[in-house]
Amino acid sequence: MRGFGLALGASMALSGAMAQMPQRTPTPNDTLKSPKVMADNRVAIQIYAPKATEVTVGGDFSSTYKPISLVKNEQGVWSTVLGPLRPDYYTYTLMVDGVRTMDPKNPVIKQGISSLENVMAVPGAETAFEDNRAVPHGQVREVWYSSGSLNMMRRMHVYTPPGYEQGNGKYPVFYLLHGAGDDDSGWNTVGRAGFILDNLLAAGQAKPMIVVMPNGSMPMPPATGQANPMQGLSTMRDMFANEFLKDVMPYVEKTYRTLPNRENRALAGLSMGGFQTLDVSLTRPDLFNYVGVFSSGFFGPSIDEAETKYSKALNDASFNKNKKLFWVEIGKDDFVMDANKKTLALLDKHKIKYQYKETTGGHTWINWRQYLNEYVPQLFK
Amino acid sequence: MRGFGLALGASMALSGAMAQMPQRTPTPNDTLKSPKVMADNRVAIQIYAPKATEVTVGGDFSSTYKPISLVKNEQGVWSTVLGPLRPDYYTYTLMVDGVRTMDPKNPVIKQGISSLENVMAVPGAETAFEDNRAVPHGQVREVWYSSGSLNMMRRMHVYTPPGYEQGNGKYPVFYLLHGAGDDDSGWNTVGRAGFILDNLLAAGQAKPMIVVMPNGSMPMPPATGQANPMQGLSTMRDMFANEFLKDVMPYVEKTYRTLPNRENRALAGLSMGGFQTLDVSLTRPDLFNYVGVFSSGFFGPSIDEAETKYSKALNDASFNKNKKLFWVEIGKDDFVMDANKKTLALLDKHKIKYQYKETTGGHTWINWRQYLNEYVPQLFK
Repeated sequence: MRGFGLALGASMALSGAMAQMPQRTPTPNDTLKSPKVMADNRVAIQIYAPKATEVTVGGDFSSTYKPISLVKNEQGVWSTVLGPLRPDYYTYTLMVDGVRTMDPKNPVIKQGISSLENVMAVPGAETAFEDNRAVPHGQVREVWYSSGSLNMMRRMHVYTPPGYEQGNGKYPVFYLLHGAGDDDSGWNTVGRAGFILDNLLAAGQAKPMIVVMPNGSMPMPPATGQANPMQGLSTMRDMFANEFLKDVMPYVEKTYRTLPNRENRALAGLSMGGFQTLDVSLTRPDLFNYVGVFSSGFFGPSIDEAETKYSKALNDASFNKNKKLFWVEIGKDDFVMDANKKTLALLDKHKIKYQYKETTGGHTWINWRQYLNEYVPQLFK
Repeated sequence: MRGFGLALGASMALSGAMAQMPQRTPTPNDTLKSPKVMADNRVAIQIYAPKATEVTVGGDFSSTYKPISLVKNEQGVWSTVLGPLRPDYYTYTLMVDGVRTMDPKNPVIKQGISSLENVMAVPGAETAFEDNRAVPHGQVREVWYSSGSLNMMRRMHVYTPPGYEQGNGKYPVFYLLHGAGDDDSGWNTVGRAGFILDNLLAAGQAKPMIVVMPNGSMPMPPATGQANPMQGLSTMRDMFANEFLKDVMPYVEKTYRTLPNRENRALAGLSMGGFQTLDVSLTRPDLFNYVGVFSSGFFGPSIDEAETKYSKALNDASFNKNKKLFWVEIGKDDFVMDANKKTLALLDKHKIKYQYKETTGGHTWINWRQYLNEYVPQLFK
């Protein structure tokens, strides 16, 4: 709340109060803007750090994430100009003399389970599908529930569509999973899921639905304490499936006006969430008619293990008949492409039908927002 | 999503993928913890910054907010030990060679309109009232609505109590306003309003109610462009009242199952929000039977201006009769104490009845969470 004095100080008659604020010399920081988006979609990233010897910026504006060096001017302001960038939302992180630093001039961030990233917008016609527009908006709820299987309070985010609040109707449910390092807020912030749904609904391109975004990051024991490092991944996968089936889904179907049958349930996830989606879909093929796997595949000791674990579903002739959609999408430059290809080969071997789309780009939210925008119109038709 | 590789890398067989991750030498940063709360409630703040020449930390753990210098060890880790601190939630910010830096080891933050602060918890029995406990939880919704008076999409946070979702009953509404520099997320994050309500309800100490947390920060033209700096404050006040009465309240009463009468409406705010509460309450004394002013007072050119502006309410004999509660609370060390005292003197002069409580401490969320916890049980009785 020290911003109180700064924000209103000039116009407030708080006698004596301002005397407590330290007087200081103006610096270039006072009027600095970052990020500064220019008319040609180039973006200046700037930070006042007169004592620093090296400043870099990395982020998903580059598919390699390779850090770019900023250059210092005589006033102590470091800057670089990115792009021109295609209009979209981008994440970035500054490193100042090796210290991970949130851009002091940009309070917009993406929350991770162990770190933050800045988010910036380059506006343009290309972002219409994900923008906060003057259309009817659904509500995104932060929901705390008691997880019996994890023995702790857990949070999920739940999107209810425009009109849900005033009506009595029941809705199909789409469970949407985030990736490793993120939490249940990711799809709602950098993923812009609420706005993407709002815009699709306003355009008549999607059915009204409830979107449930659970927390897929499991409270795991430290990996270093495990005899077998492979154990961690299968433990995580099984903990998630157990909690999802025993706590998340029952809570949602008890709390919201849902249509609780396979025809009205969809599941999708990105990266780790795509792996979780594959696991749940093949373990419980009776639950979801719509499945989406974004930038993912089976992650684990070997593809043979997956073939054994999911043999029942893989060899079940009714699997294809009951899946209205099995959607797999990934970017050409994605670093999990190999796992993706091996997964598709396994599905092919067992004649599991899926639709596959390869896009440009890598393992980024830029792609995942697009994938969500392509997946949702195909649901519950 | 680079955390993907870091989080799962050790246990993932993504052949080829890990080769893209740069190899690097381990540093003390890899295992560093910050904040590190010790058994005696002292807290170590630590940051790896081997090239830095000065690191300080400031925050509401000190009522003066005076920055404390960290000390560097031979590994390049800067640290200081705070406290012992009374168990509570605290905000803090690091400065590394003059650069405002979010603690790289602590992803828990408070979002402001122009900056972030880290948040840390010192656990203990004292925080039971504000902790995320195993009690029934309400839901906090992020709600975007079209604001006609501001001609933009605006967001509010809305708490609905446990059971709201499944029932059909109508509820009283408590409008809860944040301070300058913050937005509508503040009461929900650092203010812990949802948990405070959950705990009061579970203990039978409050009536079930809807809590509406609007965005009180107005989209103002830059203060420097104004002929009279005093103009900014009254413009902000009037813009807020207009938007609150014409957009926020109608949206809430249309969207939620509310009891839309004065007996079932409460209003309270902290600092700037307390000023807005005073303004709305005295401009429209017909709307709210419960009013709370936390760490605030009239802010503006002079107390005489307030006496003129609110003369109708101040001189209305029915004002006291209709207010079931007019609650004013502030800390002894608060830098707005002078404005608070002048405001109370004006109320006294006009025989406006209020209840006044002076606590220890200053202009901090430590106090505001306590004030909320004292105010809510008095509502709608």
